[in-house]
Amino acid sequence: MNAPKQVAVIGSNASGATVAMADFAFALGQMLGTEGYTVINGGKGGVMEAVCRGIRHSPNPQRGRSVCIIPEGEPAYANPFCDIIIPTGIGLARNFIVANSAPVVIAVGGGAGTLSEVAYAWQTGKIIIAVTSFGGWARKLAGTQIDNRRNDIILPARSVEEIRTLLQEIFKP
Amino acid sequence: MNAPKQVAVIGSNASGATVAMADFAFALGQMLGTEGYTVINGGKGGVMEAVCRGIRHSPNPQRGRSVCIIPEGEPAYANPFCDIIIPTGIGLARNFIVANSAPVVIAVGGGAGTLSEVAYAWQTGKIIIAVTSFGGWARKLAGTQIDNRRNDIILPARSVEEIRTLLQEIFKP
Amino acid sequence: MNAPKQVAVIGSNASGATVAMADFAFALGQMLGTEGYTVINGGKGGVMEAVCRGIRHSPNPQRGRSVCIIPEGEPAYANPFCDIIIPTGIGLARNFIVANSAPVVIAVGGGAGTLSEVAYAWQTGKIIIAVTSFGGWARKLAGTQIDNRRNDIILPARSVEEIRTLLQEIFKP
Amino acid sequence: MNAPKQVAVIGSNASGATVAMADFAFALGQMLGTEGYTVINGGKGGVMEAVCRGIRHSPNPQRGRSVCIIPEGEPAYANPFCDIIIPTGIGLARNFIVANSAPVVIAVGGGAGTLSEVAYAWQTGKIIIAVTSFGGWARKLAGTQIDNRRNDIILPARSVEEIRTLLQEIFKP
Repeated sequence: MNAPKQVAVIGSNASGATVAMADFAFALGQMLGTEGYTVINGGKGGVMEAVCRGIRHSPNPQRGRSVCIIPEGEPAYANPFCDIIIPTGIGLARNFIVANSAPVVIAVGGGAGTLSEVAYAWQTGKIIIAVTSFGGWARKLAGTQIDNRRNDIILPARSVEEIRTLLQEIFKP
Repeated sequence: MNAPKQVAVIGSNASGATVAMADFAFALGQMLGTEGYTVINGGKGGVMEAVCRGIRHSPNPQRGRSVCIIPEGEPAYANPFCDIIIPTGIGLARNFIVANSAPVVIAVGGGAGTLSEVAYAWQTGKIIIAVTSFGGWARKLAGTQIDNRRNDIILPARSVEEIRTLLQEIFKP
Repeated sequence: MNAPKQVAVIGSNASGATVAMADFAFALGQMLGTEGYTVINGGKGGVMEAVCRGIRHSPNPQRGRSVCIIPEGEPAYANPFCDIIIPTGIGLARNFIVANSAPVVIAVGGGAGTLSEVAYAWQTGKIIIAVTSFGGWARKLAGTQIDNRRNDIILPARSVEEIRTLLQEIFKP
Repeated sequence: MNAPKQVAVIGSNASGATVAMADFAFALGQMLGTEGYTVINGGKGGVMEAVCRGIRHSPNPQRGRSVCIIPEGEPAYANPFCDIIIPTGIGLARNFIVANSAPVVIAVGGGAGTLSEVAYAWQTGKIIIAVTSFGGWARKLAGTQIDNRRNDIILPARSVEEIRTLLQEIFKP
């Protein structure tokens, strides 16, 4: 794929995420940082904060970056591990932008907000990877089709390693 | 409920809607027009066009109005039965506005676009009515909860009459 | 012009509008209601509230309608004279939608918000009428060009009668 | 100022920018990259492309980054010097996000799009620096107030050096 090396990570916020989801997201962030991906996300708590924190704790944090696209118009509302903050001021309509922001979207857990993002990512033709190890919409939708406009499925993944391999395949020159 | 007498109708577009869905949406539009509701919708084909057409064919079309909030910036992209057209120019981010536009959202059939709207309506606290007589996300989600932030469910409805009764209850002074 | 009989009215909010501006906007609303235009506006105070109130006080208020596109996601934030409320939840990005919502945009007074709407209306090719009887950006920009992408100018108007005549010319079949 | 070290640069697109403006924007980008600012911009041609190119040609391009927030939903529409691309899919409503994206907005030249961004930046309380060396809305508005909601003015600047000094003052810990 000839596209910017960007991935979007979506998932449960602080109210919805379990500790297991956050641990996974932290490890995912470490891997994405190590591999040099720019990680677009919604910039709030839970899975979003954990993936940003993981990037900060990757061996060479300069290689990757977290870009946090938040609903509010003020940067103070972002989680404290965001490298770059985009305060949109457009509320949850920012979910559409998160879904558009990368050719690949990775979902971990997820409530209604994540569901809107997966729906958008499907409509706009993004590759979607859904983690099956936890509950939420990621597990419910993994391996399925949102509707019949596409022939492919939402790709299931159980581990960070599986995601690394999928991304290498997707972004290979 | 002390709120404007507005309902949003969402559902399958021209590619996804069956004739049965469109017939239902037409009858729904007739009922909504007769009862004097302003009907906000996405202004494209399928369920959206049928509900607008139904309003035009209600006994006193002056009492109700269809307001079509379309993705494009030009009114020519709306279906021909829209009474008022709001060309947004913001693409599918307009789904968030459709979900915000009324205290009650009624879903008929529905693919990924409808799913994003239901997810948004859930997040923003709207009453959601999902028609169970056809496929799509409306049937899949009827009677369920999107996530655990709310205690209520997506209200199932089989007929236009059931919806009329639900709305009378919701909008009673 | 073969377009929906819709006009957008923009202008100073409650903090910026003078009584003279509000009186003008009220008379403008009466005229627009009498002529059967649907009037899209930002739904807040000042010029916006006055034009909505004028429509309510036109001889046959059924013929015209005010449609209020507000920044907030809740209808309670609209002024009390809105016939139809579209709570967007996208903050001031709703200015772009107001500018897109009609083929003609009429400006009365106006601070920074109005200025963003005039700039958008210029970019998207709308006919712009600016009232010269008061201060604000309407007077500053009347008769000028925002940039050189268009050959026409922002049309100056001193009175409601002048606006009525301009609109009849614009919307003649 | 305790805020992310981010600045937004706005200005004429490829149709409106002169070579002199683009040369200035290139030098501005080099300075901003050297100083380690993340530079949010609209990602299209003219001033936007030149500032992104300048960052690439700064002594240590790793320190700074250009983040391009484009109207389209596909990254291919960005200029080729963007480090990070945010395809929004929301059209010119993205101007509101660009204006929200940093505590300081720097304008070079500028037509209607830039004008909408300056108006938004004024409404949302951003510090605005307008380059006076060229035409466009930057020169027209430098030293003025958009409306009376604020007591400060749009800061005029003639050179990249002046902007460097202003930013050091603004971002000093």
